[in-house]
Amino acid sequence: MTPNSRIEAALDVALIRSRAGSCPPKLATALEYAVKPGGARIRPTICLNVAMACGDDAPGLTDAACTAIELIHCGSLVHDDLPAFDNADIRRGKPTIHKAFSEPLAVLTGDTLIIMAFEEIGVAAMQDAARGGQLIRELARFSGMPHGICAGQAWESEPVVDLSAYHRAKTGALFTAATRMGAAAAGEDPEAWTELGARIGEAFQVADDLRDALYDEETLGKPAGQDAIHARPNAVTELGVQGAIRRLDDILSGAISSIPSCPGEAALCEMVRKTAERLTPVLPNIASARTA
Amino acid sequence: MTPNSRIEAALDVALIRSRAGSCPPKLATALEYAVKPGGARIRPTICLNVAMACGDDAPGLTDAACTAIELIHCGSLVHDDLPAFDNADIRRGKPTIHKAFSEPLAVLTGDTLIIMAFEEIGVAAMQDAARGGQLIRELARFSGMPHGICAGQAWESEPVVDLSAYHRAKTGALFTAATRMGAAAAGEDPEAWTELGARIGEAFQVADDLRDALYDEETLGKPAGQDAIHARPNAVTELGVQGAIRRLDDILSGAISSIPSCPGEAALCEMVRKTAERLTPVLPNIASARTA
Repeated sequence: MTPNSRIEAALDVALIRSRAGSCPPKLATALEYAVKPGGARIRPTICLNVAMACGDDAPGLTDAACTAIELIHCGSLVHDDLPAFDNADIRRGKPTIHKAFSEPLAVLTGDTLIIMAFEEIGVAAMQDAARGGQLIRELARFSGMPHGICAGQAWESEPVVDLSAYHRAKTGALFTAATRMGAAAAGEDPEAWTELGARIGEAFQVADDLRDALYDEETLGKPAGQDAIHARPNAVTELGVQGAIRRLDDILSGAISSIPSCPGEAALCEMVRKTAERLTPVLPNIASARTA
Repeated sequence: MTPNSRIEAALDVALIRSRAGSCPPKLATALEYAVKPGGARIRPTICLNVAMACGDDAPGLTDAACTAIELIHCGSLVHDDLPAFDNADIRRGKPTIHKAFSEPLAVLTGDTLIIMAFEEIGVAAMQDAARGGQLIRELARFSGMPHGICAGQAWESEPVVDLSAYHRAKTGALFTAATRMGAAAAGEDPEAWTELGARIGEAFQVADDLRDALYDEETLGKPAGQDAIHARPNAVTELGVQGAIRRLDDILSGAISSIPSCPGEAALCEMVRKTAERLTPVLPNIASARTA
């Protein structure tokens, strides 16, 4: 089973559990619609790779950790797309949940995906209660308040923003959760894995800034140049295109050298390199900037 | 410490945890606003009383179970009040969260309260991982899909409704969670406690139907006669006032006789009787109907 098919299979198990017996059919359909087909599944892929690098001796817990992170991510996208936030009509090439179903069902879909994330870990905790408890605490810490993705989103309602707390919570939190939870699922101390996740999160942010500055709306799949329009902090504004690309390279080198010694270290370095390739924008003008 | 002050103190601990360090201040304030001061705290009171009747040998887990149930309940009220659902301006005598703060902050407050509920149990699980895992599964089961309060709310988006599943999920689920989680926190098998929670939930529903049919808007604190206006199923429409009051008495007698043999059985019967008194409408015409 490839890592990707393992992640999809674990998500399917969660979705099947959510529609057992007599349940409201529209919400059941909306849950599946919000989760499948997915995007790049980058967070659970990182989580799975870290767990495998650490031995993956409790695959049920690893699957639950990957699933939980992706369900929280999908739930946050559904709520971020709501009219009160981004008011987005399209997500992953199809109508957003509130457009395809309704706004009440979009709110409930997000709520239910959060609950399902914790439920997956709760069920897996029957195999190893101590690791399960640790995974619950990690997931809550990087999802809620004061430092999770809810906190990150809430910074956007503040007149004065702690920018470093904002980026760490909004974009970084689930990447840090991914590496820490992958390690915890395999019985390793998550602390040693914080830096890898944080650096991948930073790289993701810089890559997103590059794409926002350089791609047009069609390539991006959403309105371009939004950071400049909304005067949001952006690595390209701060460092220029070549500076931002150098920053991305630096962060990813740092990520690789932060990987703790573990049985699957070499494979994990390869995964980070592949993530880097996937993150780096590939427009011709970027390619020339990279060689400049 | 009275049961009520113990519940408030446990909720305070959760709120303090949610605003540690640098966090977005408006969301921190909104979380407190959504939780304090509370309503009757009926669900955590039931949970605490069941745990005490079972010996309450792990008070930290009991506190976490009570807190988790109340946080989920408060979160569901914040989302139910949103413009897309009830569009309510007032809750517990003050402006609802989306009115007092904003709609984005109301969505995030509900999301964060759900996460905080699971986090409380995750933290308490450090004392007893096996019981913690069980409490996570119980909380998820009665909050999410297919049978929790999210499912209950989602039935309202369906053209054809499974009424029994709807009532069980929408009103009953958190009462059943309350008795089962109280027992589980104290190390007892939750199964024996399902009926007590389900019956208190049914009683709550009938009492609510009576209030909706008999009270005016001022006494009720929200628009009256809504079930008749929306042609929703209501015990008073079905059985008449006296019939509904008899049904309430029957359900509560059944609740008391369902209480499993346990050290605190007598005190628990007293708690159910007090809950019954609190639930039963007290308008003069109801008092005369009760003696009729």
